[in-house]
Amino acid sequence: SVPQDLDLELLETVMGQLDASRIRENLRELSKEPHLATTPRDEALVQLLLQRWQDPESGLDSAGTSEYEVLLSFPSQEQPNHVDVVGPTGDIIHSCRRSEENLTGEQGGPNVVPPYAAYAPPGSPQGLLVYANQGTEEDFMWLSNQGIQLQDTIVLTRYGGIGRGAKAVNAAQHRAAGLLVYTDPGDINDGKSLPNETFPHSWGLPPSGVERGSYFEYFGDPLTPYLPANPSSFRLDPANVSGFPPIPTQPIGFEDAKVLLCQVNMSIHNRLELRNSSNVLGIIRGAVEPDRYVLYGNHRDSWVHGAVDPSSGTAVLLELSRVLGTLLKKGTWRPRRSVVFASWGAEEFGLIGSTEFTEEFFSKLQERTVAYINVDISVFANVTLRAQGTPPVQSVIFSATKQIPAPGTSSLSIYDNWIRYSNRSSPVYGLVPSLGTLGAGSDYAPFVHFLGISSMDLAYNYDRSKTSARIYPTYHTAFDTFDYVDKFVDPGFSSHQAVARTAGSVLLRLSDSLFLPLNVSDYSETLRSFLQAAQQHLGALLKQHSISLGPLATAVEKFEGAATVLDQHISTTQKGTPDPLQVRMLNDQLMLLERTFLNSRAFPEERYYSHVLWAPRTGSVATFPGLSNACSRATNTGAGSAAWAEVQRQLSILVAALENAAATLRPVADL
Amino acid sequence: SVPQDLDLELLETVMGQLDASRIRENLRELSKEPHLATTPRDEALVQLLLQRWQDPESGLDSAGTSEYEVLLSFPSQEQPNHVDVVGPTGDIIHSCRRSEENLTGEQGGPNVVPPYAAYAPPGSPQGLLVYANQGTEEDFMWLSNQGIQLQDTIVLTRYGGIGRGAKAVNAAQHRAAGLLVYTDPGDINDGKSLPNETFPHSWGLPPSGVERGSYFEYFGDPLTPYLPANPSSFRLDPANVSGFPPIPTQPIGFEDAKVLLCQVNMSIHNRLELRNSSNVLGIIRGAVEPDRYVLYGNHRDSWVHGAVDPSSGTAVLLELSRVLGTLLKKGTWRPRRSVVFASWGAEEFGLIGSTEFTEEFFSKLQERTVAYINVDISVFANVTLRAQGTPPVQSVIFSATKQIPAPGTSSLSIYDNWIRYSNRSSPVYGLVPSLGTLGAGSDYAPFVHFLGISSMDLAYNYDRSKTSARIYPTYHTAFDTFDYVDKFVDPGFSSHQAVARTAGSVLLRLSDSLFLPLNVSDYSETLRSFLQAAQQHLGALLKQHSISLGPLATAVEKFEGAATVLDQHISTTQKGTPDPLQVRMLNDQLMLLERTFLNSRAFPEERYYSHVLWAPRTGSVATFPGLSNACSRATNTGAGSAAWAEVQRQLSILVAALENAAATLRPVADL
Ligand SMILES: [Ca+2]
Ligand SMILES: [Ca+2]
Ligand SMILES: [Zn+2]
Ligand SMILES: [Zn+2]
Ligand SMILES: [Zn+2]
Ligand SMILES: [Zn+2]
Repeated sequence: SVPQDLDLELLETVMGQLDASRIRENLRELSKEPHLATTPRDEALVQLLLQRWQDPESGLDSAGTSEYEVLLSFPSQEQPNHVDVVGPTGDIIHSCRRSEENLTGEQGGPNVVPPYAAYAPPGSPQGLLVYANQGTEEDFMWLSNQGIQLQDTIVLTRYGGIGRGAKAVNAAQHRAAGLLVYTDPGDINDGKSLPNETFPHSWGLPPSGVERGSYFEYFGDPLTPYLPANPSSFRLDPANVSGFPPIPTQPIGFEDAKVLLCQVNMSIHNRLELRNSSNVLGIIRGAVEPDRYVLYGNHRDSWVHGAVDPSSGTAVLLELSRVLGTLLKKGTWRPRRSVVFASWGAEEFGLIGSTEFTEEFFSKLQERTVAYINVDISVFANVTLRAQGTPPVQSVIFSATKQIPAPGTSSLSIYDNWIRYSNRSSPVYGLVPSLGTLGAGSDYAPFVHFLGISSMDLAYNYDRSKTSARIYPTYHTAFDTFDYVDKFVDPGFSSHQAVARTAGSVLLRLSDSLFLPLNVSDYSETLRSFLQAAQQHLGALLKQHSISLGPLATAVEKFEGAATVLDQHISTTQKGTPDPLQVRMLNDQLMLLERTFLNSRAFPEERYYSHVLWAPRTGSVATFPGLSNACSRATNTGAGSAAWAEVQRQLSILVAALENAAATLRPVADL
Repeated sequence: SVPQDLDLELLETVMGQLDASRIRENLRELSKEPHLATTPRDEALVQLLLQRWQDPESGLDSAGTSEYEVLLSFPSQEQPNHVDVVGPTGDIIHSCRRSEENLTGEQGGPNVVPPYAAYAPPGSPQGLLVYANQGTEEDFMWLSNQGIQLQDTIVLTRYGGIGRGAKAVNAAQHRAAGLLVYTDPGDINDGKSLPNETFPHSWGLPPSGVERGSYFEYFGDPLTPYLPANPSSFRLDPANVSGFPPIPTQPIGFEDAKVLLCQVNMSIHNRLELRNSSNVLGIIRGAVEPDRYVLYGNHRDSWVHGAVDPSSGTAVLLELSRVLGTLLKKGTWRPRRSVVFASWGAEEFGLIGSTEFTEEFFSKLQERTVAYINVDISVFANVTLRAQGTPPVQSVIFSATKQIPAPGTSSLSIYDNWIRYSNRSSPVYGLVPSLGTLGAGSDYAPFVHFLGISSMDLAYNYDRSKTSARIYPTYHTAFDTFDYVDKFVDPGFSSHQAVARTAGSVLLRLSDSLFLPLNVSDYSETLRSFLQAAQQHLGALLKQHSISLGPLATAVEKFEGAATVLDQHISTTQKGTPDPLQVRMLNDQLMLLERTFLNSRAFPEERYYSHVLWAPRTGSVATFPGLSNACSRATNTGAGSAAWAEVQRQLSILVAALENAAATLRPVADL
């Protein structure tokens, strides 16, 4: 009998059934109320998801919830955080807003959490205000060099440049007493800042809008690193937790930021609370290889209504699961591999639900997961696809997007449209759309960095040449509402539909193709470019210290060679009539390649970051992060320092990882 | 077509062809000359193995060597180590022997390495002699309590009780200046100590015999932890290496030990050298699942002639590979899965060859290895089988040994004979032979502890009721020669043959059975007994500190439940006509169970020990090592101490591991 493979007709059916107006209705329902993690409305959405996935007509094979007890941070209701400007005589000249202006009737009410910096400690620092640009290390150095005293000041920074938590860490290192963070109109509104230029008159951020966010430096539940946050689990003493911002911190709007001067008094009353946060999981059992999982997830919790973040993604998720569930229940289709849909809890506090899930099912997920698809914000704007991922998923995203029409164009595919906005020249393929790299901005982070699973994040985005916005303007504010999406982000929801089709097609290709559509030789290009960057930017420095990149170059060559031979072997096998075990063996090589880049001992201080190619990199050169970071630290130390030994250790870790990876690509009975 | 499965007729053929006299001839050749790691004779044996495995008539599909550059330790030839007793007037009263007495003509010559403690530092300490029994922590405490000053003394201990390196660490902690270690006739010769009672008149250790050995506390190349020791690899500065004995140390014979008194002068001139050490690997490609490996290995290097250790194992290895190679070359047989034979280098210095191999091919081995079979010393004595292993291999050893006649008995199987000498009452099976647990005494250690591969070590052994010998008497001495084996250990070589048959049958069952003969539910019994021991011996203490074993008990129950259901599922599947992928999925669950017990963050200070069930345990209660060790450390600390937090952390690590393991045993599309 013919082995079950991707059915192109079924794929077309699914593409046709993904309905923009249903996505719009999903979004309306999902974003009707604020649904901050663990609040009653968040739990109500858990039930909504469960009900959809258990629907007899359009549900999945099974669905359930799992709860973790995790440490979140909330502002006090009784004692609101406040920030006041005090005049020379000690009187209050100006009080910052305690909540955003209620412009559309949705910015008020008890369920709108006031702006705050989650995990910032309580305290009431007072001091002179100092503006520190983005709060980077360089920004503080510059101030110091100007002779500006930072001790006991209140530092004001704008969002951007580095992570939220890093601003607080840097400010505290320079002995500031408190930190304020605002959104600059230049960074978010292309400079527009007047009420009549901003929402509800445009998609711009209103002057009172404040970006909330987590200021925790790591991800996952802060009390249970590497352990699932079950009720009985060992928990760190909150007093000993690392990664919380060290000083009281508060985000403010640009309306307030522009009047700050002189002496500022902050009064912050955030508190930590253990809360139960739920994930919802829904499964379609694979017909042929049920022990291979294609994971598709998004978080459910928002800061306020969260129409864009994350409900635009959840609206797509529900539409895709409805279409697939309907085909499943009708008996029309069952995937070759298992498909797992996930709605993660408490992402906004630090990817908590997804991280706890990876901690709980570590082995099973690592053994069996083919890929993880993340669709958080599905539509930032309606111009072009934006995809991030590890190299093996590039080809399946390309295949999918070549077959789907781009919204708002007459005849272009999503791929053709994408390449117009973002492209690069590949030594192998020529001009192709640019696949971005994955940081730690959403729930893919534990999958790629902790488990070593090939992952991607998909969304529609704006035209970078038309706006310099850091992100869509109402991000993490009370202005991120259904009407905002409906009027300004994606009227007609055709970009939502385009993302649903892209994600759906990628999912079906991964779940149904006889041969996994993961192209491991696309890693060769990445490795080669990382190597070239290292040779160009670090080679001279390393040579001064008698450190050769030769073994690394050899390892990259071995990888390239092994990948090429495997590609040829796959092509040959595809032309024949391979038996099921032959295909499984090849697929295992493809699936498990990403795992070979994990080394839990490479960066022990970087919690969860074990992927030697995608761990955080401080320098700007796109190269191997461990090598790059170690070189930065060693640069100003003497020959024979521990820092130079660490450079050599990082180089050896890398060489060993690439040789080890290449070994898994070679014919399986070779040594 | 019928899927390829174990062929019982072929198994019988192999059993019949394994030839005692060929094993004897192998041993004669292997042990003809001393073959200390990396010496010319060791390299000559590399060529011998290669030649055998590349033989056109009886070789394997392919064979090759791989070399690592590793740090070994040797005594100086120019300045021999010496130990002298000095009288009250400063004159030398007695000089310890610098080499063993040449009793058979094989104890002399340039290739017999003089007795030394590998990795002990050079130095010439002088001091009063203090006898410290086995050199355990308790022994030193007892001396302190007697008011005996240890500072600046030379400590004398006997072998046994704890590892070699630990004696030096303990002595140094009590500020001793040097350490001597001897073999007590009570521990090795059942008290016999006269020349005419010992070799060559019996198997007893002669008075001049000295046990050599490595005193390095960890295993693997000391300079490249977690990295393969390739020439370009990052190496620690030898000055910063941890795990070397801190003070000059020398092993001596009991002949010398008994005359030691007063002042002792030691003069130790060991030195560290980077050497090239080879592994030899031979492969038979699997016909159906070439990407599943059954590994079978032993080290090749010896301290001197090493007839028992390790050549008795290598003689068996070569005979088994000859028989299988002949069937392979004739076209009679090809295994379902790949078989990899390995001859490891530099085991005596600390499992170096095998450890470097696991570091180099970490991912590939972890993904694909079904089990590791170690046969180091194949015959300690010729009375009964002794097997050690992780629980999943118990059943396949039982199945194999029930079908093989025991040597020297008329009608008993190896199994029936074994159960007479060593047995236990299993709650599931009733009376069964005792499977021992694996420590770190041979090359299985990196496979089980670092990679989480189900492993075993097989040998024939003595009757524990007839001798209290710590090990066979000439262990690691120049008296471990061919004639010693031929006359005293296994005249006729029938025990060697019995081990060859056992290992061969286990190997064939693992490589050829359609369903992997790994019984995961045998882990339930271990977990239950560990839990009961914890409840009995630690329960009260834990309760005092409000720590409940409830979550651990629940996790054990979940494991048991999942294992039982999986067993039933396998039985049902076996009765039907399963498709190849169904079998592969089940086999993957069985193969990968052992991996789920690894946690590289559980004991970060215990190099390579990641297996949460088999890491070293200091207490005598057979229970979970992490919990047990943490409890020992916490016992005398106050409530709320970091040590008690560590107890809770270890408990959570364990619960998470068992829940995670159980999750992999459940139906594959469940969550
Ligand atoms: Ca956790
Ligand atoms: Ca090493
Ligand atoms: Zn989001
Ligand atoms: Zn967000
Ligand atoms: Zn040995
Ligand atoms: Zn040995």
